[in-house]
Amino acid sequence: MIQERLQALREEMRKRNIDIYVVPTADFHESEYVGEHFKARKFITGFTGSAGTAVITLTEAGLWTDGRYFVQAEKQLAGSTVTLYRMGEEGVPKVDEFIAEKLGKGGCLGFDGRVVNGSWGKMLAAIAEKEGGSLYVNEDLIDIIWKDRPALSKEPLFLLEEKYTGKSTREKLNELRKVMEEEGADVHILTSLYDIAWLLNIRGGDIDYVPVILSYLVVNKNDCIWFLQEEVVDEKIAAYLKENQITTRPYDAIYEYVPTIPADACVLMNGSTVNYRIANSLAPTIKVVDKPNPTELMKAIKNPTEVDNIRKAHVKDGVAFTKFMYWLKTNIGRIPMTEISASDYLEERRREQENFIELSFDTICAYGPNAAMMHYAATPESDAELKPEGFLLVDSGGHYFEGTTDITRTMALGPITDEMRLHFTTVCRSNLKLANAKFLYGCTGLNLDILSRGPLWDMGIDYKCGTGHGVGYVLNVHEGPNGFRWRVVPERNDNGTLEEGMVTTDEPGVYLEGKYGIRTENELVCHKAEKNEYGQFMNFENITYAPIDLDAIDPDEMTGREKKMLNDYHAMVYKTLSPYMTEEENEWLKKYTRAI
Amino acid sequence: MIQERLQALREEMRKRNIDIYVVPTADFHESEYVGEHFKARKFITGFTGSAGTAVITLTEAGLWTDGRYFVQAEKQLAGSTVTLYRMGEEGVPKVDEFIAEKLGKGGCLGFDGRVVNGSWGKMLAAIAEKEGGSLYVNEDLIDIIWKDRPALSKEPLFLLEEKYTGKSTREKLNELRKVMEEEGADVHILTSLYDIAWLLNIRGGDIDYVPVILSYLVVNKNDCIWFLQEEVVDEKIAAYLKENQITTRPYDAIYEYVPTIPADACVLMNGSTVNYRIANSLAPTIKVVDKPNPTELMKAIKNPTEVDNIRKAHVKDGVAFTKFMYWLKTNIGRIPMTEISASDYLEERRREQENFIELSFDTICAYGPNAAMMHYAATPESDAELKPEGFLLVDSGGHYFEGTTDITRTMALGPITDEMRLHFTTVCRSNLKLANAKFLYGCTGLNLDILSRGPLWDMGIDYKCGTGHGVGYVLNVHEGPNGFRWRVVPERNDNGTLEEGMVTTDEPGVYLEGKYGIRTENELVCHKAEKNEYGQFMNFENITYAPIDLDAIDPDEMTGREKKMLNDYHAMVYKTLSPYMTEEENEWLKKYTRAI
Repeated sequence: MIQERLQALREEMRKRNIDIYVVPTADFHESEYVGEHFKARKFITGFTGSAGTAVITLTEAGLWTDGRYFVQAEKQLAGSTVTLYRMGEEGVPKVDEFIAEKLGKGGCLGFDGRVVNGSWGKMLAAIAEKEGGSLYVNEDLIDIIWKDRPALSKEPLFLLEEKYTGKSTREKLNELRKVMEEEGADVHILTSLYDIAWLLNIRGGDIDYVPVILSYLVVNKNDCIWFLQEEVVDEKIAAYLKENQITTRPYDAIYEYVPTIPADACVLMNGSTVNYRIANSLAPTIKVVDKPNPTELMKAIKNPTEVDNIRKAHVKDGVAFTKFMYWLKTNIGRIPMTEISASDYLEERRREQENFIELSFDTICAYGPNAAMMHYAATPESDAELKPEGFLLVDSGGHYFEGTTDITRTMALGPITDEMRLHFTTVCRSNLKLANAKFLYGCTGLNLDILSRGPLWDMGIDYKCGTGHGVGYVLNVHEGPNGFRWRVVPERNDNGTLEEGMVTTDEPGVYLEGKYGIRTENELVCHKAEKNEYGQFMNFENITYAPIDLDAIDPDEMTGREKKMLNDYHAMVYKTLSPYMTEEENEWLKKYTRAI
Repeated sequence: MIQERLQALREEMRKRNIDIYVVPTADFHESEYVGEHFKARKFITGFTGSAGTAVITLTEAGLWTDGRYFVQAEKQLAGSTVTLYRMGEEGVPKVDEFIAEKLGKGGCLGFDGRVVNGSWGKMLAAIAEKEGGSLYVNEDLIDIIWKDRPALSKEPLFLLEEKYTGKSTREKLNELRKVMEEEGADVHILTSLYDIAWLLNIRGGDIDYVPVILSYLVVNKNDCIWFLQEEVVDEKIAAYLKENQITTRPYDAIYEYVPTIPADACVLMNGSTVNYRIANSLAPTIKVVDKPNPTELMKAIKNPTEVDNIRKAHVKDGVAFTKFMYWLKTNIGRIPMTEISASDYLEERRREQENFIELSFDTICAYGPNAAMMHYAATPESDAELKPEGFLLVDSGGHYFEGTTDITRTMALGPITDEMRLHFTTVCRSNLKLANAKFLYGCTGLNLDILSRGPLWDMGIDYKCGTGHGVGYVLNVHEGPNGFRWRVVPERNDNGTLEEGMVTTDEPGVYLEGKYGIRTENELVCHKAEKNEYGQFMNFENITYAPIDLDAIDPDEMTGREKKMLNDYHAMVYKTLSPYMTEEENEWLKKYTRAI
């Protein structure tokens, strides 16, 4: 089937004299996850992983993906004539190197300019130029050959009232226009779905688990134009938009609009996230202020109303999770359970909570060796039976009107080995050390990461990911520019200065292939502590409320200071959750939050 | 007197139609410290501090300096007509802003192009250009009016044999030429005195405490030309140079040589440290590869011979310091002592050691409140009497043929308060936590700084400096690109990746104005630890051997892990030093290195 699709694509390429066609994994907005409509790379290669780029020439086809997916990709590409390029392995050319090598003098390089971001598009243009070649970017060839392509998502919209957002759309627009003025910009082009939803205080459902609306936004001094599938705008939303002087146009009309921006205008936009077709259709004389979208930092710094709400969301989420934990720990070995049935039970507990909207990401409920795979999601085929032994790792979260949660707990379902206990205790120490950090204003995640990672490094262990990420407010559960990571990874955009009101996860872990995985994840709100002659000190408030399984803790591996941190945390968990639990649950909770 | 000098300078400025003349604190090599000959800024303003820039117009004169020197500068500038500009204070213009404001249309800006680095020179040139003005940079006006100016230093040279350096000049030149080839460079211009001395395995004495030789070096494929005051080259050095195919030319001949570099050449040099006159006299068609000098990293990564030697130097230095500590602790209150007499006693102990060359910096021996000033140096006027109470802070070091040392100990001379004990114990914990770090290869000081600073931040205390700096080998005691600091300070050049063989100090402290100062400083050699599936782990070896005063430690403030670190360190100190101490000293040392 893949071979036939490739043949059909090559036919379209030949008609247009295209020598190479590039199909990345992306929507028109540089979203982290993409909807079904946008899974063109999966369509043309058969590879279903979340990350990868396909490059098709008239005689070859290649798929580039990273280490997480080598095994899966190899299986899925078998018989497809698509070659797997293992990114990061020695001797494997990068996508751009491959293209540069294969294009040839005067060659034509094609891609849909809407699914390639401005920075990468420029690099591809430079490759073509070097060869005296050309680009073909204004048509989506996959769309021509993909007969049963899912339509663009068009989920209903809903307003997020000011009691949830803490700031009106009017105020947000005013602040944005103020920054535009400071930057000398007449026009701001915003294509980030998260930023648009935040700015307009409107949510939708066009990406699984991420309640955003497929759309573009253009703001200038007097107008705010929202380009979206207008049929989703109901009366209530229409009235709201009118009240805020926001007009709408069809989703695709952005591509007619951008070329009409006056040639002497100054445009503020993020050149590396705005897509290539938009960036490239601005009049060449336009001055571009290429900076992060001002809304990025605005939405990362949660206002006091949002922080209060988020705390409430976490109480509900903590109640749901702790009820699940109680059920799990008291029923394991008595009633049949699997990864999927357990995560279903947890989802039910969340759905019972007031103002629950949906899960904030696909639950990871991973038993035993499955938890060693950081991004494991149980399928009916893999769905492991839970037994009264070893570790179960559950990473999950929800969207509530009061905010978005992300929590991981690893629970001993029965006996564990000494090594498992040591690793669990160390991960707990790691988590607590970062949560209890006090630091001078100006620090970034680069400065603090070792507080969490250090206890594991001391043992010669590492986790191959950041320690934490920013969390959106009823938006993407992964949000910049805050995070904890020891090395700068530019595309992650997570080493911004830690500001008051930012919410960041703290999730160290141990992952032993074929054995087990441990992760303990809380969310931390950054606050101002004292200001004195040394400067403004900052600290964190732990806003995730659920026991850290004491059955897996070895108190002898903890210092007095560390035990106090854990005891203080558990005392807070009990105090916060007990009003919402049954008597039996509280009896259990008391034991699982006892001082050690 | 200053007014007369300013008048004389303005007369010379008028003769040449110069409107503004800039006098920074610098030699021709961007050295951290400068010799007497180069103290032109002190000459023209009367301000003796180590940092500052003077700007003289035909009607005004200003001195810019930083917070360390506000009080001193105010005193010294009184009656001079020189205005003090407090750098960093609100509303105070920066040097460049002041110049831009005062220059005026078509104005002429003058400075000695040899004492302004390439980057700053370009910025000044841009200011002049913006005003349609001109630069006057090829004459040192101060030299004309400074009748009794000290001559350029011309101290004798000495070779550092291969048993000390671990690598011959020939090998070092070969490695340098290899990098030049990789960079496509035909010519390398090296003006850093530290790098030249390291590359040639020759030392001198042209800067106090820094055994370097005033000189420039040019390397190309076949030649290596050393520009220096040739009269310092004795027969032995001449033979050595000949053997290594290094030719010499007069110091100033560099300014005739650079313009003769072929117009189609490619020059590798550090554009921000090479001085403006050199940078500006290259033919404009020359391609400049503007990168850090390759020797910078080469010299920072000590080879195994150097590391072995450095360890030996530290044993000798530790013996000297511990004998001093014994004398101090056993004689305080019995015989008269002052800051200066104590530091003299310590210097004598160092001079007794084999292969001692000189002190590596001006000893800081600061009693009581004096120690709260980080850069205090006792003068006959300030010289405090030592009493059997409170803290004495001693920061000192030596150059030996086997390397350079830098150690700080704070010692209780008698009773101390609970607050002092708590702060001393915390500084000790800070020091130990960093020294015992284990981390993945790729970390910089930015990642590790919080290990040391964290325990103080937890108490709402900070020290307003880095936690540590690289240490040269019989060179500047401050050396890049390694260091520990939580924020990037570009001009410090101290956040390079920590490489095996780098030597860095670990010196957290508490400084309470008017009360006391505490600092505990050890040097750490970076080593490779295990390599496994997570990567290459790194750790440190503590190579400073002297007790950390147990009289000032509160064991109750330390965790079991921390006490173990201190006990392990003290056991190593005793084992290392005891073979070189007298019986009485060892009896004392045993007590002061006991396990707590």
